[in-house]
Amino acid sequence: MIIVMSPGATAQSIDDVVSKIRAAGLAEHVSRGTERTIIGAVGDERCLQESMFGLMPGVERALRVLKDYRIVSREVQPADTVVHVRGLAIGGRALQVIAGPCSVETPAQMAQAASLVRAGGATLLRGGAFKPRSSPYSFQGLGVTGLDYLQQAAREQGLPVVSELMDVRMLDTFLEYDVDVIEIGARNMQNTDLLKEVGRINKPVILKRAQCATVNDWLMAAEYIAIGGNHNIVFCERGVRSFDPAVRNTLDITAIPLLKRETHLPVIVDPSHAAGKSWLVPALACAALAAGADGLLLEVHPAPAEAWCDGEQALDGAAFALLMAQLRPLAQVLGRTLA
Amino acid sequence: MIIVMSPGATAQSIDDVVSKIRAAGLAEHVSRGTERTIIGAVGDERCLQESMFGLMPGVERALRVLKDYRIVSREVQPADTVVHVRGLAIGGRALQVIAGPCSVETPAQMAQAASLVRAGGATLLRGGAFKPRSSPYSFQGLGVTGLDYLQQAAREQGLPVVSELMDVRMLDTFLEYDVDVIEIGARNMQNTDLLKEVGRINKPVILKRAQCATVNDWLMAAEYIAIGGNHNIVFCERGVRSFDPAVRNTLDITAIPLLKRETHLPVIVDPSHAAGKSWLVPALACAALAAGADGLLLEVHPAPAEAWCDGEQALDGAAFALLMAQLRPLAQVLGRTLA
Amino acid sequence: MIIVMSPGATAQSIDDVVSKIRAAGLAEHVSRGTERTIIGAVGDERCLQESMFGLMPGVERALRVLKDYRIVSREVQPADTVVHVRGLAIGGRALQVIAGPCSVETPAQMAQAASLVRAGGATLLRGGAFKPRSSPYSFQGLGVTGLDYLQQAAREQGLPVVSELMDVRMLDTFLEYDVDVIEIGARNMQNTDLLKEVGRINKPVILKRAQCATVNDWLMAAEYIAIGGNHNIVFCERGVRSFDPAVRNTLDITAIPLLKRETHLPVIVDPSHAAGKSWLVPALACAALAAGADGLLLEVHPAPAEAWCDGEQALDGAAFALLMAQLRPLAQVLGRTLA
Amino acid sequence: MIIVMSPGATAQSIDDVVSKIRAAGLAEHVSRGTERTIIGAVGDERCLQESMFGLMPGVERALRVLKDYRIVSREVQPADTVVHVRGLAIGGRALQVIAGPCSVETPAQMAQAASLVRAGGATLLRGGAFKPRSSPYSFQGLGVTGLDYLQQAAREQGLPVVSELMDVRMLDTFLEYDVDVIEIGARNMQNTDLLKEVGRINKPVILKRAQCATVNDWLMAAEYIAIGGNHNIVFCERGVRSFDPAVRNTLDITAIPLLKRETHLPVIVDPSHAAGKSWLVPALACAALAAGADGLLLEVHPAPAEAWCDGEQALDGAAFALLMAQLRPLAQVLGRTLA
Repeated sequence: MIIVMSPGATAQSIDDVVSKIRAAGLAEHVSRGTERTIIGAVGDERCLQESMFGLMPGVERALRVLKDYRIVSREVQPADTVVHVRGLAIGGRALQVIAGPCSVETPAQMAQAASLVRAGGATLLRGGAFKPRSSPYSFQGLGVTGLDYLQQAAREQGLPVVSELMDVRMLDTFLEYDVDVIEIGARNMQNTDLLKEVGRINKPVILKRAQCATVNDWLMAAEYIAIGGNHNIVFCERGVRSFDPAVRNTLDITAIPLLKRETHLPVIVDPSHAAGKSWLVPALACAALAAGADGLLLEVHPAPAEAWCDGEQALDGAAFALLMAQLRPLAQVLGRTLA
Repeated sequence: MIIVMSPGATAQSIDDVVSKIRAAGLAEHVSRGTERTIIGAVGDERCLQESMFGLMPGVERALRVLKDYRIVSREVQPADTVVHVRGLAIGGRALQVIAGPCSVETPAQMAQAASLVRAGGATLLRGGAFKPRSSPYSFQGLGVTGLDYLQQAAREQGLPVVSELMDVRMLDTFLEYDVDVIEIGARNMQNTDLLKEVGRINKPVILKRAQCATVNDWLMAAEYIAIGGNHNIVFCERGVRSFDPAVRNTLDITAIPLLKRETHLPVIVDPSHAAGKSWLVPALACAALAAGADGLLLEVHPAPAEAWCDGEQALDGAAFALLMAQLRPLAQVLGRTLA
Repeated sequence: MIIVMSPGATAQSIDDVVSKIRAAGLAEHVSRGTERTIIGAVGDERCLQESMFGLMPGVERALRVLKDYRIVSREVQPADTVVHVRGLAIGGRALQVIAGPCSVETPAQMAQAASLVRAGGATLLRGGAFKPRSSPYSFQGLGVTGLDYLQQAAREQGLPVVSELMDVRMLDTFLEYDVDVIEIGARNMQNTDLLKEVGRINKPVILKRAQCATVNDWLMAAEYIAIGGNHNIVFCERGVRSFDPAVRNTLDITAIPLLKRETHLPVIVDPSHAAGKSWLVPALACAALAAGADGLLLEVHPAPAEAWCDGEQALDGAAFALLMAQLRPLAQVLGRTLA
Repeated sequence: MIIVMSPGATAQSIDDVVSKIRAAGLAEHVSRGTERTIIGAVGDERCLQESMFGLMPGVERALRVLKDYRIVSREVQPADTVVHVRGLAIGGRALQVIAGPCSVETPAQMAQAASLVRAGGATLLRGGAFKPRSSPYSFQGLGVTGLDYLQQAAREQGLPVVSELMDVRMLDTFLEYDVDVIEIGARNMQNTDLLKEVGRINKPVILKRAQCATVNDWLMAAEYIAIGGNHNIVFCERGVRSFDPAVRNTLDITAIPLLKRETHLPVIVDPSHAAGKSWLVPALACAALAAGADGLLLEVHPAPAEAWCDGEQALDGAAFALLMAQLRPLAQVLGRTLA
């Protein structure tokens, strides 16, 4: 912690700051500048809060020097974490593509979806049984029945499944239905009770970024999971709030190299939710891999125009196959592999 | 719903859109312009989704005309709703001030806080027992013990209490401890399972705006509560994400008149969380009332520099009393009353 | 400047930073912490750039401690500046209301506008002769003829005039037509050549905030003017970019107390451009005064529905008179006066 | 234009809207829905403004259907425009890399820069002689002398030059020094007088996106240039304002496919200004090409740590050569070529 004193701070004010630093078990270092005095608190500053000093007389501001996340930080673990899901590795040389419809609708739709995403080269099947919708009048998902349809379709194709958990009370059901990867959606990224609960299990968790979370907020949300013992966390960038109505969300491609520097955990990208339009998805998917993403989360639906939700952003089978054909040589140039 | 066709859309494409409108039980109105054909769907468009048309050949875009919220809208109920809490009215001529510390710390701290907020003229006591913190290493609140301290202090002063509910599993406990007003925090504004649950009880709910929620998103979140039968909802503006690091959040004062036009429900403002600094609170509190707010939610702590969280934004007793003295004549000029 | 070294920075890296500080004529203060070494540069840091250190081996980051603005800062001049315009004082106890149409259209429109704004209590007349429009197909203003119509109407009513200067080549014309206050619009807030030129004259300048300028950017833009010798600068908040399509811009009310603390210059507010809708203007105007603004810039047009631009945000004569009647008792309660 | 009437709008209000549409020379189409009446204006709506209807009694809102830009739109010209600069083609199959320092400093620095950017494969040399800095105390560029040093260095290497024009009064000087491509910086994207002037010459113009311009605002700025007769316009994405202090600007990769659909003009990307840190540049440069950009604008400096401005975002010669080696196979996979 660095405490910047106001110009004209009294000797008493400086002494008071020093006393407070010592009382917290740290040592002080006082630099008397020509315009301001600056005091450094030497030791583990995690027990200090900026507000402890910010309100003291003569203090202009207090700046934290250390980062708040530890377990998920690359400073603590320099080597990449690889998250394993039924024999698949997320975060290694192989890129993983998770594909499927926004929401589970019928057994036939899921069977078709699973078949075409596998044929295209996806290695995991996604499908929402519980849907976080902006309107209570929109389709809210099939619920537990949806998990059933999802698992049936996935088993036939031999694919692990990914599904979103919204309500902490449904965690046991997700475990019972053996959902392979639990997705925490953007709207729940700061639902700390939910984060704590998925931190206590050993299933991999995909943690989507909230619409206006800073990269630091997001890393702290992952720390909430990690602190419970579950380190199988995959970050998923899905776009942030934009002032431009031309796009649903702004895909924040810069977050990929930022996260790669700050954390050892894998990073994937969901271009479908960011774009909001299927014709934008290929350009964003290519950009995500080129920027260093470890995989993609794509909305694929056998008949987007008939989808019960978010059809405008879903690729159909042909568009998905075409995109995968485009991504394979790109992956190779980037030194990665794609099924 | 209005469907704008692309220039050069074929007669077949137009027929297909018309068929789809009729299949949904609505009637069509086709305007053939010099550059584009525009088709209106006449009837209750709530059963239509923009994506049903957006993906059809020859369609440029589909625009929704009606708003998605109904119960909370002023169109449905033109007269103001007044929310009653133990004899107090939120949304009437009298302005209500809810004050207290960010978090419940000790019985002594709560007793002091309750005493000074009542002395200053606050009519409800706030205090967080469960705290949504960005870092898992920060103080997470006293939990159930906190509810106990809060109620003890409030009863001594005869004040109703307001406290934040984060986890749906704690709802029964909140009812058991008879929390008078349940606060849904910004991070949980789109936690739809939590919204649905508080929609089933009859306690008033303060619904804070999420950091990057549009006014429409916020109204839809209220609709999630209202649809369950609980119409005792109070909106609370607390600032939105800003690009400017000079301020913690940008207080969106414009949201007050916007909400007043769109909904019949009361609107209050929390200037403390928006500002992040106590010296900014008085200017923002005055502005909020001048813009038409029905009340304020203020952080007041007997000793801000010793607060366990967010001390920098808390007013001490003297500053609170001073602010209340400043607000009283302002309320009068605005045609409102303040205790 | 504070330089935070990486964990594991070598003694050589630390020495190199120290040498660079000394080479710039400053002294160093080295704090060796348990996790990181922190080096303070003591002296006038304005000759240092963060990037001088940020790229050196072993450096994690460099933080500037001092602010970049001087002349406009309250640290340099604690007492409020009052800007004088033909006997009127902006920034004193009296609030000033600048009103008039977005654009000058005809002599008759200006005569009517001048008459009704004066009758309502405005003390300055505004009118745009040069209009910065998003579209080249929109009305661009009458140009020099507009200045002429504006001055004629203003003289008849004995009001000083305010008009926007966009092009540095028109400055002499503005001086020739004796425009009393030069407005620099949001789109030109960072047009540094224009700022430098208005810094060389002695006419008061209203400096509007760019749509996504931070408060610091804005203060620096004012410093560009002040450095040329013209200290008659008035800040004008007019809303910042929002992610919410419900509003044209978000009026940043918090900027008022922030500026009042950081600078000695007056601050006024333009609620019309922020709102984009005239029915929102009264609530925002009241909020602006309550937050401490020194005046308002309002769009008033004799017949908004016939306005050549931005009619939706203009008040008509009756609405303006009503608003002024509402603002007068408010001003009094705030300890200010209003004509 | 579509005019949505309020529920309960009177027959008179509807008639008034119809009369206004007819008065503007268009025809109307009235759809009487169950909840609202919707009126379409059929004909060239460019002579209509939303505000003409928005203020009429009984009108809820008016929606524009057509886009405001014409010359730059792909609707008007479906085939890609290729901009030619001394034998180089921007917007064709070959990708162009424009590289060089942020600011021109000395003849030696420019000679070194030109030599290393050419060796690395850049095809144009950039260098700022006039610098738009946030602070008046920062280096403002060498001015005309800078243009001279830039041209000398470029001629020795046979490279065309790109330099930023900020002040309309310097246009003749830019033509005299034969600057091959004129850059309009982000701060001047809405300086319409400057746009109009560069619209009258026949030099190619790189139009950078303002920090908070929507894609539509940006297209309209290009229309300002095009309307004067100069259609040699290249869009340059350089990042938009972000709420996240972790990054200087958010590179909006989605703007690339959006622009490619809306306009026939070439699109390049400046990852250096977006990132603010040189270590982020390679990931963003790769992402930009993968998303479909026609070229890159990169900051390269022989000695970034000694740069007079923005050194933290500049690549040195080795980093630039490495990045180019990484981009070449990527270009090939994308069906493009790179020198």
